[in-house]
Amino acid sequence: MEFAIQPADVREAAARIAPLIRRTPVLFDVVDERRVFFKCENLQRGGAFKLRGASNLILSLAPEQLRRGIVTYSSGNHAQAVAIAAAHVGAQATIVMPEDAPRIKIESTRKYGARIVTYNRFTQNREEIAAGILNETGGTLAPPFDHPMIMAGQGTAALELLTDSGPLDALIAPVGGGGLLAGCATIAKAIDPAIRVFGAEPANAKDTFLSLAAGRRVRVEPDTIADGLRSPTPGQLTFPVIQRLVEAILLVSEEEIRAAARRLLLEWKLVVEPSGAVSAAAVFFGRLPAEIGSVGVVLSGGNVDFEEIMKY
Amino acid sequence: MEFAIQPADVREAAARIAPLIRRTPVLFDVVDERRVFFKCENLQRGGAFKLRGASNLILSLAPEQLRRGIVTYSSGNHAQAVAIAAAHVGAQATIVMPEDAPRIKIESTRKYGARIVTYNRFTQNREEIAAGILNETGGTLAPPFDHPMIMAGQGTAALELLTDSGPLDALIAPVGGGGLLAGCATIAKAIDPAIRVFGAEPANAKDTFLSLAAGRRVRVEPDTIADGLRSPTPGQLTFPVIQRLVEAILLVSEEEIRAAARRLLLEWKLVVEPSGAVSAAAVFFGRLPAEIGSVGVVLSGGNVDFEEIMKY
Repeated sequence: MEFAIQPADVREAAARIAPLIRRTPVLFDVVDERRVFFKCENLQRGGAFKLRGASNLILSLAPEQLRRGIVTYSSGNHAQAVAIAAAHVGAQATIVMPEDAPRIKIESTRKYGARIVTYNRFTQNREEIAAGILNETGGTLAPPFDHPMIMAGQGTAALELLTDSGPLDALIAPVGGGGLLAGCATIAKAIDPAIRVFGAEPANAKDTFLSLAAGRRVRVEPDTIADGLRSPTPGQLTFPVIQRLVEAILLVSEEEIRAAARRLLLEWKLVVEPSGAVSAAAVFFGRLPAEIGSVGVVLSGGNVDFEEIMKY
Repeated sequence: MEFAIQPADVREAAARIAPLIRRTPVLFDVVDERRVFFKCENLQRGGAFKLRGASNLILSLAPEQLRRGIVTYSSGNHAQAVAIAAAHVGAQATIVMPEDAPRIKIESTRKYGARIVTYNRFTQNREEIAAGILNETGGTLAPPFDHPMIMAGQGTAALELLTDSGPLDALIAPVGGGGLLAGCATIAKAIDPAIRVFGAEPANAKDTFLSLAAGRRVRVEPDTIADGLRSPTPGQLTFPVIQRLVEAILLVSEEEIRAAARRLLLEWKLVVEPSGAVSAAAVFFGRLPAEIGSVGVVLSGGNVDFEEIMKY
C-alpha cells in the first residue's frame, strides 16, 4: 500500500523548517554498557519536537490560507508549536485545549498570541469544536499527528539525530498518536535499512501496542501521567507506517516513567516531561533487546509544571 | 607584568582535553531584545566546567607523577572533575571535601573511585589537610583554580562558545576563585579584542568585586547558596588576569540567583545549580549595559540535590 509519507518528504521538511526550529543537541553517554544518544527535543523551541511538524505544515500554506487562520486541538505541546509557527508567519492560531491541560502549556500557548478555546475532555469532543471553528473561519486544520506534513516534520528529529550520531543499531521514540514515530521510522529506515526502530508507550496507554498485536487500530482509555501520549488510538495515516517499519512497542509503567524523568533531571541535568521520558524509561529499565549496542533516544519534550517536577 | 596563562595555553588545553570532555551545546534565544548564547556546562561530564581544568592538568602529568596520585580540596564540582580525570588515566584521586557539601557532589565523587577525606569548613583548613596528604604520598596537587593548567583548561569553555556563536558584544562568566573567568577572558580577548568581558558574583560573596575596587585581593566571608562560588578571596594567579581583562563584576542577590535557576529550569529545561545560574541572573535582571546586543553566558554547572531544586 501507499504510505502517507516518503523519506523525501522528511528531507524537504528539514529544509523548510530550518529557519524556525532549533537544531537540538544530541547528548552521548554509555548507559549499562550501551552507547546512548539522547536527542534533546525538550530543548526545542516551544519545549518539544512538535514545532517540527507544525512549522512544516504552516510554512507550506499559501498567503490566502494563512489569512484565514490555523485551527488545532491539542493537549498542549502541539498547541504551543502551532502558536509559534503561526505567529512566525503572522497568522491567527485558534487552539482547542482541554481545560485540565498543564498550566504551563496553556500559558505558554497564550503567550504566543494564540486564541484558546477550552473544553472538558470527559464530556466534549475536540474534533467537533474545531470543525465548528473551521466552518466559521474557513481556516486550515493543523491536526496533532494524522497529517502527512506533520508526520514528515516530526521525522526531521531522527534525521538530525542520525546525522549527528552516525550509524546506530536502534532508534526509539515515544508513541502517542504516532506522528513522531512514523516520521522517524520513515527516515531512519531510508538512511539505514538495518536499523531497528522501536516505539515506547506507557503501559497505561498502550493503544499502539494493542493495535499492532490485533493488526488493526484498537481504542483504549489512557490513564497516564504522560499527558502528551493520551491519544486513545493510533492515527489512520500513522498506523500503517508503524505497522510496516516498527519492530515493537516497548511498554513502561508509570513508576518507570517518573524514575526516568528524575534520572534525566539529576544525572543529565535535563528537564523532561513524563511523555518525553517514556523512551528513556524503556532504555533505563531494560526493555531493549540485549544485543543492541547503540541506540538513539528521542527525548520528546520538556514542558512540565514546577509542581509536577517535585513529584518526580 | 607576566600573566599566568596566554591564549596559546587555552588552545593547547582544548586539544589535550578533547578526548575526555563533552563539547557542550550552545543554546540561543532572544531575551529582552538581546541575543543570548548559553554555554551549557551544566551538561558537561561531571556536571560542570571543572572537568576542563582538571583534565588539562592531569593529562599533562608524567606516568611516575600519576602513580603517586592526585590530591585536591573542593566544595564539590572540582572534586568530581579530578575524580573523573584521574580515573581516566588510572590514577588514585584523594579529595578533601567539606562535610556539609551537597550530598550529590560527595556521592558522585565517590562513584568515580576517589578517596574522600571530609573536614569541617568552620574549624579546619583544607589546604593544610591536603598538604599533609601530599607529604605522605608525594602526589600532585590539583588546586581548584589558582594554577595555570587549571585556568587554561577552564578557558576552553569560552573558546568553544565563541567558535559556535560567532562574534559577540560581551561574554559573562561566574567568578568564585576566578579560574573560569580568567581563562575565558584570556581566550576571548585574543579572539576579539573588542569583546567586553564581565564576571558575575553573588552580592553575598563579592570578594572579586571588592578586590577590583580596592586594587588588591580582599577577603570576605561568603554566605551564599551558590556553594561553588564561596571562595573567600580571588586567586593569586587569577586576580591579575581579571584585573587586566575584565570590565566589571556584576552582582546579583540570592533571590535573583534562585529566580534565574528556576527560569532556566522551566523555560530552558535546564537543571542549573545556583552557582551556575549566577551569570544568567546578571543577564535576566538587567545588570549588563543596555547597549550590549549579544552576549555569551556560561552556565557553569548543574550539580544540585533534588531537595535544592524544590526550593528554586
